[in-house]
Parts: sequence; structure tokens; C-alpha cells
Amino acid sequence: MSSPVKIAIIGANGYTGEELCRLLLAHPRVEIVALTSRQHAGKSLAQVLPKCERKNAPDLRFIEPKLELLLASGAEFFFLSLPHGVASEFAVPLLKAGKKVLDLSADFRLRDAAVYAEFYGGIHPAPELLAQAVYGLPEIYRKEIAEASLIACPGCYPTSILLPLIPLLRAGLLDPQSLTVSSASGVSGAGRKAEESILYAECNESFRAYGVPKHRHLSEIEQELSLAANQKTVITFVPHLAPMTRGIHSFIVATPTARASAETIHQTLQDFYAKEPFVRIVERMPDTKYVTGTNVCEISTRWDDRTGRVLLFSAEDNLIKGAGGQGVQCLNLMCGFPETESL
Amino acid sequence: MSSPVKIAIIGANGYTGEELCRLLLAHPRVEIVALTSRQHAGKSLAQVLPKCERKNAPDLRFIEPKLELLLASGAEFFFLSLPHGVASEFAVPLLKAGKKVLDLSADFRLRDAAVYAEFYGGIHPAPELLAQAVYGLPEIYRKEIAEASLIACPGCYPTSILLPLIPLLRAGLLDPQSLTVSSASGVSGAGRKAEESILYAECNESFRAYGVPKHRHLSEIEQELSLAANQKTVITFVPHLAPMTRGIHSFIVATPTARASAETIHQTLQDFYAKEPFVRIVERMPDTKYVTGTNVCEISTRWDDRTGRVLLFSAEDNLIKGAGGQGVQCLNLMCGFPETESL
Amino acid sequence: MSSPVKIAIIGANGYTGEELCRLLLAHPRVEIVALTSRQHAGKSLAQVLPKCERKNAPDLRFIEPKLELLLASGAEFFFLSLPHGVASEFAVPLLKAGKKVLDLSADFRLRDAAVYAEFYGGIHPAPELLAQAVYGLPEIYRKEIAEASLIACPGCYPTSILLPLIPLLRAGLLDPQSLTVSSASGVSGAGRKAEESILYAECNESFRAYGVPKHRHLSEIEQELSLAANQKTVITFVPHLAPMTRGIHSFIVATPTARASAETIHQTLQDFYAKEPFVRIVERMPDTKYVTGTNVCEISTRWDDRTGRVLLFSAEDNLIKGAGGQGVQCLNLMCGFPETESL
Amino acid sequence: MSSPVKIAIIGANGYTGEELCRLLLAHPRVEIVALTSRQHAGKSLAQVLPKCERKNAPDLRFIEPKLELLLASGAEFFFLSLPHGVASEFAVPLLKAGKKVLDLSADFRLRDAAVYAEFYGGIHPAPELLAQAVYGLPEIYRKEIAEASLIACPGCYPTSILLPLIPLLRAGLLDPQSLTVSSASGVSGAGRKAEESILYAECNESFRAYGVPKHRHLSEIEQELSLAANQKTVITFVPHLAPMTRGIHSFIVATPTARASAETIHQTLQDFYAKEPFVRIVERMPDTKYVTGTNVCEISTRWDDRTGRVLLFSAEDNLIKGAGGQGVQCLNLMCGFPETESL
Repeated sequence: MSSPVKIAIIGANGYTGEELCRLLLAHPRVEIVALTSRQHAGKSLAQVLPKCERKNAPDLRFIEPKLELLLASGAEFFFLSLPHGVASEFAVPLLKAGKKVLDLSADFRLRDAAVYAEFYGGIHPAPELLAQAVYGLPEIYRKEIAEASLIACPGCYPTSILLPLIPLLRAGLLDPQSLTVSSASGVSGAGRKAEESILYAECNESFRAYGVPKHRHLSEIEQELSLAANQKTVITFVPHLAPMTRGIHSFIVATPTARASAETIHQTLQDFYAKEPFVRIVERMPDTKYVTGTNVCEISTRWDDRTGRVLLFSAEDNLIKGAGGQGVQCLNLMCGFPETESL
Repeated sequence: MSSPVKIAIIGANGYTGEELCRLLLAHPRVEIVALTSRQHAGKSLAQVLPKCERKNAPDLRFIEPKLELLLASGAEFFFLSLPHGVASEFAVPLLKAGKKVLDLSADFRLRDAAVYAEFYGGIHPAPELLAQAVYGLPEIYRKEIAEASLIACPGCYPTSILLPLIPLLRAGLLDPQSLTVSSASGVSGAGRKAEESILYAECNESFRAYGVPKHRHLSEIEQELSLAANQKTVITFVPHLAPMTRGIHSFIVATPTARASAETIHQTLQDFYAKEPFVRIVERMPDTKYVTGTNVCEISTRWDDRTGRVLLFSAEDNLIKGAGGQGVQCLNLMCGFPETESL
Repeated sequence: MSSPVKIAIIGANGYTGEELCRLLLAHPRVEIVALTSRQHAGKSLAQVLPKCERKNAPDLRFIEPKLELLLASGAEFFFLSLPHGVASEFAVPLLKAGKKVLDLSADFRLRDAAVYAEFYGGIHPAPELLAQAVYGLPEIYRKEIAEASLIACPGCYPTSILLPLIPLLRAGLLDPQSLTVSSASGVSGAGRKAEESILYAECNESFRAYGVPKHRHLSEIEQELSLAANQKTVITFVPHLAPMTRGIHSFIVATPTARASAETIHQTLQDFYAKEPFVRIVERMPDTKYVTGTNVCEISTRWDDRTGRVLLFSAEDNLIKGAGGQGVQCLNLMCGFPETESL
Repeated sequence: MSSPVKIAIIGANGYTGEELCRLLLAHPRVEIVALTSRQHAGKSLAQVLPKCERKNAPDLRFIEPKLELLLASGAEFFFLSLPHGVASEFAVPLLKAGKKVLDLSADFRLRDAAVYAEFYGGIHPAPELLAQAVYGLPEIYRKEIAEASLIACPGCYPTSILLPLIPLLRAGLLDPQSLTVSSASGVSGAGRKAEESILYAECNESFRAYGVPKHRHLSEIEQELSLAANQKTVITFVPHLAPMTRGIHSFIVATPTARASAETIHQTLQDFYAKEPFVRIVERMPDTKYVTGTNVCEISTRWDDRTGRVLLFSAEDNLIKGAGGQGVQCLNLMCGFPETESL
């Protein structure tokens, strides 16, 4: 086997960074050569991310997120697990230096800088890169991902919503103006931030909606749905916080078009994902516990005879298929590795 | 104060029965004179329901659910916390004996025995009682409850869905054909039954829809919504099981009618519930943790400018406002007690 | 009924303060006249503590914790729900002004200022008050509490450990030098503080010991055990953080003395607590879920024939019998109210 | 690479069986050729264990647990994930047929059939096999495991208790008669059984001891401790049920012998496990969340100056290092594979 691909993870101490670490440490064809954390620079992997510690593993130490250190590390691929806005500060010079970037923030997910400004506030930090960025949803953009230098990994909610909807909108089976989505996420989706609202005693035995009616993820969801439907698509999307650490569940209601039926809905998804290793269409109801710890998104469909509506359900691990795992899937494509390696 | 009203709880060892016990033991104007449980007959309250044990409280023992024992107990009011179908077996003779019945099962919630047959299977066990039964939602049927002999206490999901919707449908502010509801419930809603699907390790870190697309509670929800809208109303309703013991959260999407606005939606609810002790209209998002342990249902409204839809949110304790507490509220009305007594 | 006793809660926005609010709002003989919170001054009760909101309740607003405001409120009794060290800053002037103080911090629990310095660091802020403070454990110091002006409410762990041990040490049934305690607490015990270690995703599916081997609560535990045993008593105490919001469970191992037996151990506790409204000796194993939401501490005993050791188990709600409820119990004693009022 | 080793799992639908499936499906050197379940015979892997489903994986179907079917499957190694007593019924004929057996029940863990009778009730079903069975704790019995035909995989609690204690008892650093252990387990340890006591609503927000004072696991714990201490050793062991799905945490108190010190305690463990891939000695407190999903047991030590006692802490995943993972570790040894393969 050829020598391993060298990888850096910038911002590796959050939940997504931790999951990336865990997956990449187990990946036989890559080597992590740099991990950064402003807060934990100088500490060992075992100190910062005990879950990732393995006996006899090489001693990895967190470093400051400084460009010169990153370039000196020899890494060719850089995962950015940083807040939006901050990610661009690294993406721009790394791309200039000829490196490949997989950004897990929102900085490069939107094609239109004006939409970024509307949803994220302020001027886009690097609008010149938007045209070259590829939205990192392999089931939709596999070929583009393989050839890209800058991947914008999708958000956790968008992945769970786009995978069931894109094939059906492309096939003209759903009215794009009829979509409403009710999602529930585990608390790790809020990140490892010391905030009162995500304390254990504030989330346990609690269920609540938030980010209503204009959650930031709407921008990328509507962008991709509009492309699939070939018309401007605006949806209702309400996320909820559920008392669990991991997992996202989405429930989608749509009005079918005249040519749709229970069978065409189900079969279109079945066909679209038949050969996809990480999407499974199931008869039973999706359940977050069946996908936690995996890169799988499971989807089911129901036809509600009484109202004439279509119901779609999906479940994924928000930190894997919804973040780090999907990033590794993209990396595998970019490197020409088997797409399922280490996943 | 006059002598206390004598109460019996039939089927007192489930979660709803336990909550009824707890509330009624603390109620200064009532006395529990009989508790039944086929499984636990002969055991003390402390043995079966340790949460309800209080030092120096009178020694209550569970008895067999036999009519002669129940009548001999001297109870005037009977709470039935039994499976549907079984409840009627007690309601019929107790009413015949001149007793008052508060049934927490589904047996008397539907006005039309054919709908019962459609949703619950089989022929209704006592259709002759349907006309006299009152749906036990005090905010809607307060006067009728006060005069009734047979109360059909609403289901947990229906309470959380009807309270926000009825005033708005009555005011003609929502299109009744546009309604979709996504609810999440704590696991106690499934009852204290030894079933694999509600084991701790099957529910923890799990979020899943169930009962799709025709959950039994739809029948009473649509009955009451149809009355409020003055037209046959059919809705999409998807319940989910969330990893928590208690609480129900409902998220409702509706298309407003031409005369509706963010203000009229909010104000209509505010006015309707201004003097209601157990319904509060809040600006923030409802959260199950703020209502657990109380008889309160909290509701908020949002107007989604982007899609032109109305979003409604509600939260309640499924075992209190969604079951036992609402039953006690009805009892207070029937007895002429202050409606909030012990709640 | 005479006019209600006026109460102030200083530091009312933490979990203990919230529980105090809830209990005192339901108390028929008291009136909350002041609630303080540096962070939330100016906001309403409903905004800061939604769980405590009740329709038609008087509008309570949080004020700054300033002495002149507190004295102007007319309150006669002051609950201090503040960090240790800070509590003294209020206790000293309030006592000087002739007010009664119930302190829930550690400032006045220790009789010896040197022990305070050893366990809490720094010089005691008001050592002259230590002699007059009464340790607020009603089952042990009922008479003294009734006559005191300054109550030092016990910590949550100490309550669960002292209640089973004090009667047995007084009776000479256990070797005081043999005691080891393993406790588990819900996360609310750590307070409503924005710290990473108590985030939902850090505590869920986690069980860990902490504060080993010299948790601060050891100081008051050993003080009271030494008094009961009439000899200096040093114990092993290891607290654990369990993934639940509320509840403390303690498991104690001890070597019995020659005159002890399974029967004397059990009977001594049974007799000691026979008339106590809030302590129950049970045959089954104590379970936090049976005491959550109540002021009860339940205790059981086992005699381990194989090792000749005595095993004791206790469970309580850390925020009620372990904090606010015990405070209200003390208040009831100080005011001559029935001890169980509102509890 | 040579052709894969053929494996059967008997009783594959429990939590341990599921974990074994998951690990072995990912194992590059083995092939599962039979999965049994009386309840689910005829169903596919995806239907019974959705977590284990992988796209494009071979279609595995559950079969009846009949000897002739098992022998016909071609399997050479048989994992028994069955209740005690039942396991023997398969072990005896499989061994007779020349197969290798890894039993996860208690049937072959005890060397003395009389101890089995005392702790498990009834006569041992196959006492003639006890002499040849090897206790499947690789860190202690690595060589014997490699050569054995019948492995008795240790229980979940014993693994977490024996790993910290055996090296210290062998070194004579602890008084064997002084040991007390307080453990906490996730609910999956109770198995996938439809029992009321392990329902979600019975375990959530609950912490309780059980199996006191003579939990069945005591028998194997004391057997192995006695061997290590070279004297009959009887201990106090109290397991607790904690509201989490996975993980075991053990806290051990011991009296050190004269030659022990904080340093020798720590260093003895450090040395003993220096090259062990699955045991790590940490400075911080072990936490179940750091080992969940791995085959690692982490251990820390504290010297309590105030009482002169030694405190030991350990954490493991009850279903992996405490069950299925340890079984796979044994399999790897028996097959001459790298010990960490697939773990």
C-alpha cells in the first residue's frame, strides 16, 4: 500500500472534531499529522479526547491553529471544524497553498453570498470561493466531490432532509411548495459549548422547538431543494431539541403531484439509493438508535390515504452522516479510496 | 368543611392511576376509599405505589376490581384507569347504580359508535351511553362537565392539540383542511406494560415515529376539530416517542385564512384562555420541562412570513393535564370545588 | 389565619432557589416578598423560572441583591441560596438587623472555623456567628431549629448519609472508624452553571466519581458523625455523578459492634424515625424515583452474613430533602407552623 | 489470507448477541454462518437487529437453535449467548462434536459445582466440563485461552472488578478481607427481556441498588480473587442500576498492607498492564462515556491519606469488554489472530 495521506483537523476538540479523530485514527490509509485547538494546545490526544485514546498509538499533541504550523505539518487534506466565519480564515490561505479543504462549517455551503448574509449576518468572508466549493453530499455530488479542492460538508439537519426529498423532487412526485419538516436532534448538535441552555438538567426530561421560523440550515436546504425541484422552493422547517446525545430524526409532510402514488414514492427512493452504501430505505419506521455510531441514513415512506399526503421519515447520527462521517466519505472520494473505508 | 367526597380508582397501578392517587391523596376535600388492581389485590399502597406512600397516612389496600366490593366501598365517584373495552364493563353498572364515572379510557370519547369501531376495532360495548358522556376538556365543556354523570377524559395527545386549535378554528382563522401535527411523547404514555419496545435500552438515545398514519387518538381529535370548524376535518397526525418519562410536545402547522394575522392568532388564544387557570399563552417556546408535574398546558404561536403558514406549539405533562390532572379538574367541577384544588 | 410570614430568597435563580420558590409559592402561610438575582434583576418570575409561573399569581419581579432593597421588602425570613463565602456577606447584616436567616450554603455548617479553612480555603468570613448557627437537620436538631435565628441547612449528600448513621452511632451499633460511603447524585446538584463538565452530552450515558478523596461535604458529615459517635470520626466518602437530573442515593458499609444484629440495626432506625413525617424505613431497596418531588428520605438496612458487615441504603431528592424542602421544613419549625406544611 | 473462520452465535437477539454480531460482521477473518433465535427464526438480520444491517452484506437469516442445523452450518466456533443452564445443553454436544465453544453465560465460570449450586440454584448441568473450561479474561489467562476448547467468558461486573484487583492481590498490596465494591451498571446489563422493572419509565431518573447482598457474580469474583490472593476471599459487592444504556463503573475500597504505598499501588497496575491493548491506567477518574463502544477498561487509583484506605475505580462497556468484545478477544487468541482484530 502506498504511504498514507496526511491529514490535519483544525478545531478538533468539539464533538464533530472528536468524531473525525476517532474515524480517521481507525482509517488504514490516512495519518493524522496535526490537531489544533486554541484552548488545548500542548495537551495530548488522551488528555483532550479520552474516547480517542488507544494504547500504543502514536503520541499526538494539539497545536495552536497557526497557518505556518499547519503547513509545516505536511498535511495535504485539512478538515475545518470551526465556527462559520472563522473557517474561511483558514480555507483561503490553505487553498492558495495548494491544499485540499473539507469545511464542516456553513461558510461554503451557499452558492449565493447574499443568502449567506441574510441567514448568517454580515458580508461573506470569501465570496470568490463559493463558485469552486462543492456541497459535500456524496449521494448527490459524488463526481464533483472527487475532483474538488474545497468541500462544504452539509449540516446535520440538511442531510436528513435532502436525502429523502431530492430524488422525489427531481422525479416531480411532490409539490415543492407544500413541504413542512419537523426534526428532532440530540444535544451534541449544539456543540461542546458551556451554555446554560444545554446543561444536562436543562435538556433532560425536556422537549422543545427552537430556531423558529428561520433556522440557519434553511438556507442550504432550500438551495438544494430548489435545484432538485427546478423552481424556487421555500419550506417550513422546525427543529426540536430532544433529550439524547446523538441522532437526528426528520419527519416530512408533502403533497404529492398527480402522477405520484405510494408505490412510485417508495420505488423512486429505492431505485435512487439501491447501490448507495450509506442510505437504506426501510419498511419500518426509522429510529435514531439504529443508526447511531454509523454513517447510515435510513428512510421510510408512508402514504396517508385519509389526507392524500405523503409522509417521509429519516434518521441519522448527527455527528457521523450529519457531520464527520460524511466528511470522511468525501475524503475517501477525493483520495480514490473505497468510499466506505473506516465508515 | 363538609365530609369528604368518597372516591374509587379502578386500575390504580398504572402510571395514570398512580398520578390520580398522588393528586387525590393530597386533595383536602376527597377521600380515596377503594383502589383496585387485579394483579396487586391485597397489597398496600406503599407496596404497589411507593411514590404515593406518606407517613401517618391511612392504610389503603388494593382490592379486586369486583362490582360488589366497589359498591360496598361507599364511593360516589369512580375513576376508571383501564384499557378501552374493559372500562365499559364497569361504567355501565356503576352508572346504573347511580354513581358518577370519570373514564380515562377511550370508551366514551367518541359520539359515533361507528368511528369507535373503525379506530378501536369491534363493536362499541355500550353505545347507549355515548349520548350522555361529556368530553372532559374543561376549557371547552366546563358547564357540561359540571352536570354530567359520565366523563370521557380526553387522551394525552388530543389535549395538547385541541387546546391550541379549537379557539382558532371557531374564530375561522385557520383552514381546517390544512392541519398537520407532529407530536412527541414521553414513554410513560405507553403505560406500565412489560413490553420490549418500551424497555429502557430500547427508548434511551432513540427517537422514532409510531402509529402512522392512523393513530387511534385521531378519532377524537378530528371529532372535536370538526365541531370547532363546523365542517368535517381530517388531519395529518404523527406521534413520536422521545427518550423521556413524561411530557407531550405538539407542533402544529396550518394555513391561515384571509382574515388571520400574527396578531389575531395570538390574541384569539390569549383572550380565550385569559381566565383559564391551566392554559398559558407564552411568547417563548413551550418546553415540557416547564409543565411537568403541573396541570398546565402552555402554548405559543409563530407566523412564518416566508411560507405564509401559522405554527403552533404546545407542551403539557401527559400524565397530568393529559390524563389524571385533567380528571381531577373535572371532578372538582362536578363537585363544585374550586377548579384548581390539589392541582 | 394570621397574616402571612414575609419571605425573601436571595439567589433565587439556581436549582435550589427555584425549588424554594415553588414550595413557598404553594405555602398557605407565607408570602414571598423579594427574589434576588444579579443576573436577572428586573425580570419577572415567569421569565426566569417558568416552572414556577402560575396564572393569576401576583407579579413577582427579581431585584438586585442589595441590602437596602432586602430590608425595604419587609421580609422577616431570608433564604440564602448563594455560593459559600458570599452567603456570609448577607447573613451578617441581616442578623444584625434582627432578621432570621436560613442559609443553604456551607458558611455556617461547621462549628470550627479551622475546618472551614481546611475544606473551603481561606479564612472564615464570619467566625463569630458559628456558635449561634444551628445545623438544619430537623430530625436531629428540631428544638434548636425552632429557636434559632441562623440555620445552616445541610448539604445534599450529608442529609442522605447522616440520617441513616446518626441513630446507629448514638446507639453504639457501628464502629465509627469503619465507615465507607458511595453516593450517586443527579446533575442538578452541580447547580445551574454554564460549565462544560455538566453539559447534557458530557453527563448522559456517563457515570463517574469526582471530588475524591476529600469532597467538601466530608467536613460537615464528619462533624456530625463525630458528635453522634462521641469520638473523632473520619470516613471514606466517594460521590459519583449519575445521568439523571435529580436524586441522591447513598450506600454505606460499616462494621457492626458486638452488640449489633440485623434486628437491632433495623429496629433502632425504625424506632428513631417512627414519628418522623419525612423519613421512612423500608424493606425494599430505596430508589431515587420514589422520593423525587418529595421531602422524604427513605432508608433500608441489610446485614451481610458472608462478610459480617452492615449495609445501609438511602435515597432522597437532592433539591428537596437535600436542600430547599429541608429549608422549608426548618422554616415551618421556626414559625410554629405544622412541620409538613407545603411539603 | 486464508479462508475465514466460520462462526455461529446461539441466542443472537439479546444485547450481547447483537454486539457480537456487530463486531464479528466487521471482523475481516471470520464469517458468521449461523445465527439462532427461537423467537425470530426465519427472519433476516435486518429485521431482528437493524443496527447490524449493512447494505450489500450477505443475507443472514436466523435459524432455530437446533443442534443438527448448527452442525450443518459448518461453524467451527460457537458463541453461546444464552441463559445459564441452557448454555450447557449446547456446550456439551458441540464439544463432543469437536467444536470450540465460547460461552457467555455463567455455566462454566466456576471451578466448583457446589458454588454453582449455591449461587445459581440446582445441580450443575455438566460438572465434568468445569475442569477443562478456561475463564476468558485474556489479561490473566491469555495462554490458557489460546489452547482451550471451552471458554467461560466472565460476567460484566467481574471484569471491572478483577482487572484492578488481581495484580494488587498477587503483589500482596491489599488485605483481601477488606474489600468492598460499589458498582453501577447501565440497564442493557439486564438483557432484552420484557420486564416491568427495566421499562424506560422505571429506570429513567432512578438509581437503586439490587441483588444485595449476594449477587450471583460474587461467586466468580471471589473465586478469582481467592486465587490471586492465595487465600479464601469474601467481599462486599453492591451493584446499582443507573439510568443509562451501557457502561459499568466500579468503585473499590481496600485496606493496604504494610508494604503498600500510593506509588506501589499505581505502579503495580501500570506495570502489569503496560503492554495490554485493552486496559489503561489513567490519572483522571474513569468515566463510562470514555469507554463505551470500545473494548477498553480504564482504571485509576487513589490513596486516601485521611483514612489510610486505597480507592480503585474502573469503567468499561458492559456489552463489549464486559461481554461480547471480550469474547471476540478470546476468539482472536484461540485463532491466532492479532488480539485487537475488529476491536
